[in-house]
Amino acid sequence: MMDPMDFSTGTTNPETFPIEELAEAAACAVREYGVELNTYPGNLGHEGLRRLMAKREQDREGVAMNPERIMLTNGSMQAVTLVAETLCQGRDDVVVMEEYSYAGTIDAYKSLGIEMVGVPLDDQGMKMDMLASILARLHKENRPPRFIYTLPTYQNPTGAVMSRERRIELLRLAHEYDCIVVEDNCYGDVHFEANPKPPALYALDDGPNQIYMCSLSKIFAPGVRLGYLTASSDELFDRIQARRHDAGPNTLAAAITARYLEDNLWEHCERANVSLKEKRDAMLDALEAELGNICSWSHPPGGLFIWVQVPDWVDLERLEALALEREVSFAQGCEFHIHAAGGPFIRLAFGWSRVADIYEGIARLARCMEQASARRGDVG
Amino acid sequence: MMDPMDFSTGTTNPETFPIEELAEAAACAVREYGVELNTYPGNLGHEGLRRLMAKREQDREGVAMNPERIMLTNGSMQAVTLVAETLCQGRDDVVVMEEYSYAGTIDAYKSLGIEMVGVPLDDQGMKMDMLASILARLHKENRPPRFIYTLPTYQNPTGAVMSRERRIELLRLAHEYDCIVVEDNCYGDVHFEANPKPPALYALDDGPNQIYMCSLSKIFAPGVRLGYLTASSDELFDRIQARRHDAGPNTLAAAITARYLEDNLWEHCERANVSLKEKRDAMLDALEAELGNICSWSHPPGGLFIWVQVPDWVDLERLEALALEREVSFAQGCEFHIHAAGGPFIRLAFGWSRVADIYEGIARLARCMEQASARRGDVG
Repeated sequence: MMDPMDFSTGTTNPETFPIEELAEAAACAVREYGVELNTYPGNLGHEGLRRLMAKREQDREGVAMNPERIMLTNGSMQAVTLVAETLCQGRDDVVVMEEYSYAGTIDAYKSLGIEMVGVPLDDQGMKMDMLASILARLHKENRPPRFIYTLPTYQNPTGAVMSRERRIELLRLAHEYDCIVVEDNCYGDVHFEANPKPPALYALDDGPNQIYMCSLSKIFAPGVRLGYLTASSDELFDRIQARRHDAGPNTLAAAITARYLEDNLWEHCERANVSLKEKRDAMLDALEAELGNICSWSHPPGGLFIWVQVPDWVDLERLEALALEREVSFAQGCEFHIHAAGGPFIRLAFGWSRVADIYEGIARLARCMEQASARRGDVG
Repeated sequence: MMDPMDFSTGTTNPETFPIEELAEAAACAVREYGVELNTYPGNLGHEGLRRLMAKREQDREGVAMNPERIMLTNGSMQAVTLVAETLCQGRDDVVVMEEYSYAGTIDAYKSLGIEMVGVPLDDQGMKMDMLASILARLHKENRPPRFIYTLPTYQNPTGAVMSRERRIELLRLAHEYDCIVVEDNCYGDVHFEANPKPPALYALDDGPNQIYMCSLSKIFAPGVRLGYLTASSDELFDRIQARRHDAGPNTLAAAITARYLEDNLWEHCERANVSLKEKRDAMLDALEAELGNICSWSHPPGGLFIWVQVPDWVDLERLEALALEREVSFAQGCEFHIHAAGGPFIRLAFGWSRVADIYEGIARLARCMEQASARRGDVG
């Protein structure tokens, strides 16, 4: 089990997890779907959860989604991997993406032999002039990307939200170059501010080149291993299905999760987000108090992470080792860089720890940072 | 939901499925592991189920298995696919296997571009003289197989059980050619006869080239999507782990399943097998009564299928269509042939249907067969 001051992983918040209600839903779902458990789920999976996720998308984006065009996956990571396996051809596979991105995606792409081409980003997401010049260059070199992968909302690790204008420009560029867009929206419902987010990319485009994936790992629990994907054309959706070879997604987990969430999806998200916002604010507050004079950091309007720029003189390896001695963990920025060449950044996750442990953990981290100077030799 | 006379799929028996007990176990497991659900499972997955599966293997094979060397998978099909993805290199990939095999495996290998080389089999499994000559030929051609894939016990679709002598010979050949053996034992605990089965291949070999996979889909329920794999060397096990990119197996399904089975694994199997034996016997009895004069079939000592040879004059496409009109379904033999070139066979699954429906379904099938003569033109 994770330590109390583990800021390394994007887990959900155990304090708002509805254990007793889920226990009751689990018993109900088994009684209702016990016979179905004796059959195979098919590629798409439990219909109840697909209907609920279609409603989730429709409620958020205002665009109808057909549950028959939703495929449940083993977390959104299976969707990430499956889409890459489907669209790549085993050689000369180039994918364009934010230069800092989700470490799981980077690891999967590396393992599949994909060449990742990174687009710099700021707090409004990918810089579109950079994307335009990268696409132009790749086409000139006659190696167009298989797809553009993006986390437009509450980007992991930076927390950036791609502006509406940039989303429209990204879609325009994708049309111009006839390029598939793979949108990973797993943080899309983890938000702390009243301002409405920009629409998902798929909701801004009627073309056939959109693939969209989302998850229950961030609004409910990663241990249920439930994500989903959809595609904007039958052809793409069928190709992805044809590459799936695990005999389908988990009926038991899907039926239980659907049973719990079907009556209170948004109430559950609201309750979870209120608590996460307190944790985010506690971490921002602790950072200001402890590290305000030497670090700077993101103020993410959603998601589960704060992205911290540390001074150049900090030896990150040493900082990590010192922090671990004091039972504090975090993720190094280089884990999220497509070429492991990240600058002086660390990523702090705030979902798991209690507020008091967040304050204590950041205080400990600040003391470790004083000792982790790359310039100071063997001090500390 | 499946029809009452659906003999097409290897489902478990809903009549012996412990719905009420599982409902109670589900509620208990959520209460016990609710906090853990908020974390990621790691590549290996829920420890309780891994310990239970290690015990299962040790009880059956008499060989200790380390739970840290067990990786839970999304059914054994994820294990089948993951192992092939790990061991194949994207070109010149040859795999040697029984010429009739599990359709899911065949589909996955096809999709991965693997060249399948088939070994003929009889009721004692792969013919070893044929395996020897195939391995010799492939080595002479300088394209050694990436691995030998085999279902040695209650083979799907034939029901064959590889004899102990052939197992030892297979292992000898694998040593001679330094070839990895991938053993799929998903039916190994679905048995109807008192005679002890031969040991699993991994239990007969101390070498580093064994990969073993098993499942809960056949002894418990396919809808829980739980399988597992192990490998006989750290190096192989680590390589397979490195190819996994779905952020790990399902904690919720694993914790619930472990909670139910931990006190009564073998009692559960015994209860399930007693009922399945009645169904197998009913189907054998019905076949004898209805088709004894024109067909022949396997008498499987375990597994979920009867493999039926139909007369040459039967048009299988027509038989399938006629049977579906009468709400009877089965699987055509060609689905299980590595080159879809199967002879006049059909596979009948007996787990799903009630005994009365088995009798009725086989009677209907017999009437359809009379009408499905390829020689009789448009009669029927």
